[in-house]
Parts: sequence; C-alpha cells; structure tokens
Amino acid sequence: MTPKESVKDTLFLPSGFRFAGVACGIKPSGKKDLALIVAEDPCVAAGVYTQNQIVAAPVVLCRQRTPSAKIRGVITNSGNANACTGEQGEKDAEEMCQRLAEQIECRPEEILVMSTGIIGHTLPMDEIREGITVATRSLSDSSDAFYDSADGICTTDKFRKTASAECVINGHTYRVAAMAKGAGMIAPNMATMLAVVLTDAPLTPESAQHILSSAAQCSFNRVSVDGHTSTNDTMLLLSSGKGEPLTDSAIDELQQTINRVSVEVAKMLVADGEGASHFMQIHVSGASSDDDAETIGRTIGASPLVKTAITGGDPNWGRIVSAAGYAGVAIDPARVSLSILDTPIYSNGSPVAFDEAALSQKMKQHEEVTIQITVGTLNGQATIWASDLTTEYVRFNSEYTT
Amino acid sequence: MTPKESVKDTLFLPSGFRFAGVACGIKPSGKKDLALIVAEDPCVAAGVYTQNQIVAAPVVLCRQRTPSAKIRGVITNSGNANACTGEQGEKDAEEMCQRLAEQIECRPEEILVMSTGIIGHTLPMDEIREGITVATRSLSDSSDAFYDSADGICTTDKFRKTASAECVINGHTYRVAAMAKGAGMIAPNMATMLAVVLTDAPLTPESAQHILSSAAQCSFNRVSVDGHTSTNDTMLLLSSGKGEPLTDSAIDELQQTINRVSVEVAKMLVADGEGASHFMQIHVSGASSDDDAETIGRTIGASPLVKTAITGGDPNWGRIVSAAGYAGVAIDPARVSLSILDTPIYSNGSPVAFDEAALSQKMKQHEEVTIQITVGTLNGQATIWASDLTTEYVRFNSEYTT
Repeated sequence: MTPKESVKDTLFLPSGFRFAGVACGIKPSGKKDLALIVAEDPCVAAGVYTQNQIVAAPVVLCRQRTPSAKIRGVITNSGNANACTGEQGEKDAEEMCQRLAEQIECRPEEILVMSTGIIGHTLPMDEIREGITVATRSLSDSSDAFYDSADGICTTDKFRKTASAECVINGHTYRVAAMAKGAGMIAPNMATMLAVVLTDAPLTPESAQHILSSAAQCSFNRVSVDGHTSTNDTMLLLSSGKGEPLTDSAIDELQQTINRVSVEVAKMLVADGEGASHFMQIHVSGASSDDDAETIGRTIGASPLVKTAITGGDPNWGRIVSAAGYAGVAIDPARVSLSILDTPIYSNGSPVAFDEAALSQKMKQHEEVTIQITVGTLNGQATIWASDLTTEYVRFNSEYTT
Repeated sequence: MTPKESVKDTLFLPSGFRFAGVACGIKPSGKKDLALIVAEDPCVAAGVYTQNQIVAAPVVLCRQRTPSAKIRGVITNSGNANACTGEQGEKDAEEMCQRLAEQIECRPEEILVMSTGIIGHTLPMDEIREGITVATRSLSDSSDAFYDSADGICTTDKFRKTASAECVINGHTYRVAAMAKGAGMIAPNMATMLAVVLTDAPLTPESAQHILSSAAQCSFNRVSVDGHTSTNDTMLLLSSGKGEPLTDSAIDELQQTINRVSVEVAKMLVADGEGASHFMQIHVSGASSDDDAETIGRTIGASPLVKTAITGGDPNWGRIVSAAGYAGVAIDPARVSLSILDTPIYSNGSPVAFDEAALSQKMKQHEEVTIQITVGTLNGQATIWASDLTTEYVRFNSEYTT
C-alpha cells in the first residue's frame, strides 16, 4: 500500500533520550539492523509482551526487568529473532545488554533488549559486539538519529513507522514519540511487533505499566495481518521524567495522547502488512460485550476468504457474515446487518439489493475498505484493523529463508 | 495436487439406494449441479452439521429431521449455498424437499436437503424444479449413477471424492460407500463440506447418530484448508438396512470401516484444497490431552506462515514451533521437538543441525509433507491433515463472485 502515513512533517521528540541506528552486518542486505535508545538518566520503563508460550530470549530478560524506575537503554537487533536458540540465545541476549551497559556505563540489568527476524539461528555476536561500539559513538538526540533507530528495528517493513505528538496539560507541555516495526506475523496480541513509546512526562513504574497496557489494548492488540502470534512481541514505554510533574487527573489526558500515537503506528503496521493491497477497518457493534465484538472483528479480519475477497474488490459479503458466525461468541443471526464502504448489503438476516458492480469498483479504488457489521441489539463494540491477503504475501512468505 | 486418490478400481455400493446427478442450470459452467440419493424403502439417517451460528436454510431443515428411521431421499444442489437468504431461502429448501417427495411419492419431511456454493443469492427455483423432474427419471443403482451424484455435489472441487469398502462381520458382508465435496472453506468443524456415507448395515437412528459423530470426529473434523467454518457443513449417514442384523459387538467393526472410508474422503478434501500444492500430515504428541494435541495440530495447519513455508519447500521450522506456542493450550517449551519428513530439526527446545538444502529439496519433491511435533512429555496425541497456501488460492478466491 502507499506508505503515505510514514511521512510526517513534525517530529515531537521527548527530551532525555539519544538514539542511534547502524548496519552491523546481521542482514545480508546491508540495511540497518542495530538500534539504540539511551536515556541520559535512569528512566521509568514498562513493557507488554507476546502471549506465545515459546518466547525469545530477549523477551524473557525484558519481562524480568520491567516495570522499573532505572532503565538506561534499549538495544534492538533486526534480522534475527534470537528465538528457539536455547541456552546460547539466553547468553547472547545477556551479552547484548552487558556490552551496551559497558559503553554507557551502567549495569546490564538497566538495559532492555529486543530482537526480531528469523527464528532458530544464533546471533552473529561478533558483528553485534562491533555494532554496539559503533552505534554508541553516533548516539544523538536529533530527529535523524531517531529515524535511524526506527529504521534499525525494521525487518521486512517497506517503510519506517513513527508517530509523535505534543500535548499541553495544565499549562505544561509533554511530548510522546513512538517507533514500531512489523510486517508479517501481525496478529492478535501483537505478533512480531516491536514498539517503543517515549515520553518526557514523569511517571511511576506502576502508572507507566498501566498506561502502556491500556495503550496496547486499543492499538496493537486491535490489528491483524496473518493471525500468527510471534515469539518476540514487545511494546515498551519509557519515561525520561524531564517534564513537569503530572497531577492524577492529568494522567488521563496523557493516556489519550499515548493511545493516539500508539494507534497511529499500529495502523501503519497493517498498512505495511506483507504484500497488503488494502487496509480493512472493521467496526463491530451490537455484540454482548466489547470483548465479544473484538473477537468477531478479529475473526473477520483473519479469515483468508474475507481477506482475498477484499483483495479482489469482491463484495462477497457471505464470507464476512459467516466469519462472524464462527467467531465462537454469541450473535443474533436474525439481527445481523452489514455495510461495506457505507453500502448496506445485508440487513437483519436478509440480503439487501445493491449494485454489485459499483461497489466492487469502489472497493478496488479504495485502499481503505470499511466494513460495518452489527451482530445483535446489545452494546458491545470494537474496531479492528486488518490487511488483505495477496499473491505477494504468499510469494514472499514461501521464499523467506531458502 | 495430483488427484490420484479419486480413481478407485472397485466401488462397493450398498444395496437399497439409487442415484442421479444432472446439470439443471445453477452453475454457469453447465456442470452437474443437482444430485439425488433415493432409498427404496424408508431408511435410517443421522446427521452432523456446521457449528457456525449463521446456518443455511437446508441445514435448519436437516437438523429437524435427523436422526430418523424414515428418510427416503437426499437432494443436493451445488453452485448456490442457499445461505443468508432469509425467509425465501427457507421456502426454497422446503420446496426442494416437496418436489422430490412428489416425484418419489413420500412425505416432504422424509427428504433431506443440502446446498453448497455462493452465499446470499436466492436459488433459481425454476431450474431446480425442472432438474428434480429430470434427475428422478434417471435414478439408478449403477456405479455410474453414484458417480454422477458425487459429481453433482461438487463446487470448485478439481476431482470427485468417493470411497467405499466391504467388510465381513460374523460371516455377513456389509458395504459402506461415501461421497464428499469441499475445496475451500475447509476448516475445523468441517467447513463447506458436504458428505454422505451410505451403508446397508441395519442401524437404529441412535446407533447411526453415534457412529456418524465418531466418524466425523476422526475424519472431517481433522482437516483444515483455510480455517473458515462454513454455513452449510453437513455430513449424513444413511442406512438402508438391507444387510443382516448386526450384534452389538459387530457395530464396533462397522464403525472401523465407516471411519476408514470417512478418513479416505476427508483426506481427498485436503488434497483438493483450493490451489493446494502440498498435503501436510501433522502428528502432535506429548500434549496434555488428545483434544489439546488436536488444537495444536489445527493451529499449525491453519497458520498462513506455516502453510506458505510448506508451499515454498522451506524448512522454516520456527514458524511451526511458534504456532504450537500460541495455540492456546499448555505446552512444555523445553520439551518441544520437531521433525519434518523424518529429519529432526528441533529437539527439547534447541535447534538441531541439519542439511537445510537437502530437506528443502525433499519437501519440494514430496506432495505429502509429514510434520511430527512433540510438545511435552504427556500422552495426548492427534493427527491433522491440512493443505498449504499458494498464490493460486489467493488468485482463485479474489475472483470468485465478480
């Protein structure tokens, strides 16, 4: 899809952080594959992680280290997930932290680590060691350095994913900036997704964890590319605390800003779903609960038959309605209604006459296809963002390692 | 894939049934789209049906009418699912039964009906009415008529799916023959799958229902093409009762034969998965229960990333192991081991050195790829059959209605 969302005019970088992104030689392509975020002073950090039972070594380390009030840096490599790599993988993740800690003079436990890429290969540690040294030298608080680090966490992403915002609360200005990566394996519960949200708003570890969990729920947990939950999903929130203290009520306003920035990068992930040609926005209403609505939206968004219909600009709505029916949560079949791009095509359990050719034409012209489905008369609702499924996805993923 | 399984030397047709399959004009292609199975005398019938909450009109009727001891016929149309068609759909399904009942002189409630094809379009009843008259005239107990009816239930199937067997129990001979259709939407809980199993062994409605449920569980409920559960799934068992009475212990032997025939046609469904180039046989062992093992196998078989790896002959085993990790049932990550085509590649949570190029070559040469995964040290096990995911699947399903 058109990477229109990746270009932003203004970047609002929170103070207190420096960045670097270099190519250390993990990726055969020679693209950037090592990224650093370093905090001037110990900062507050929270994390949310994959729900896969098979977890990569860096996820195990990060889980132990968050929430925290004394994190100094985040090191990320792309091109290799350091997952299913046994004891060697654990040692390597530890060593990445240790090397960065030596360079910036802190303790290894004050470093968080993320990896993304192919599963089951041990990391090329010689390249990574050298890369850490080189990257540390280029640390800077410039926009360019931030973008370099955002590039360094990408794998098969076609464009870098960043978003930022500035908000004024009680007369004080706070900044929020986020970077993310993820193209395939984007699924419920975040999949191979890495994201870091930075803010200068002072937070406690507990409030940071709470804010992050809420932000993840309304952003990355609402996207679906291929339903495959990865071993490496990590979303971090770092607070440098350089801004003015926040009152309790002000935290709600900050939450809104962090949610908004998180949603913005999460939607970029879907727009960059491997091979994606359409972005589906699926609104579900009338469900028994918001959770049920989310489950229904996710089932629709994950159905290969729905995805391929959207790819072909095909208003084959039976696939959408039937996906709602097998989502595993209660619906009221006689009260199911559906619109695609505001064209009503199914109403209270019966088809509605519509101009199929015109709607198909419209679906082909729109990169963003909105699906609105009502599944009953209750109040549960949710919005899910999902990519379609193209021959490019299949071609790409049939040829990834060999 | 090569339709090798569809050609059988011998057909063991149970006595007591006549068949017909005609082209009545539902399919624009002019292929057969109406099939009849008519019992000489009232026969015992059982059914298992889709678990989708959105169910097609014929499924509603069949559910009301099985199990039964007085079924006289089954009418099936392909090319139109008569699903999401509101009240008109219900009337049309009723009328199909009524028309056939008139022709063979029985009551409409003694007829079962199945439909498969596109969702949301009302049936072309003029063509169907005429088709029923024509088909009834050609009813015959010949092999050709059986194959005609097997052709008449197909939609996007590339080959007809039938299997049969003869078994001798306590000196008496019994026959079992089955036909099925299904190519896309093949998923947990049978998806758009229609199947009819016929036998001459005398059964009560209760024993027929029990036998059918068991057979479905070990056959059609173990296959996965695209994870989309359809609105029309129906599997029927009809017993003409023409054979000698069975003792209770003999029923177990009959069950084995019915299971074997059901598995044979179920595997044909996977081999004919839309666009499929490989057949995956996934053995899961070491799980907490057989159900858990089945869930894990199904999750692996449904993952687009696993499917595309198999398509590309790519031993990208991390995708398989990580799919096991997100199946939602407990596994023991440190005790996970994996082989593909008998090549061990992951053992007790760590990678095993293997010749990647040689295994990739082997995967490309084999249409059937066996995956063996152990997920712990307990006794739960299951086998799942799944198709891979090709660009042809996507191309085909992007262009189905428009």
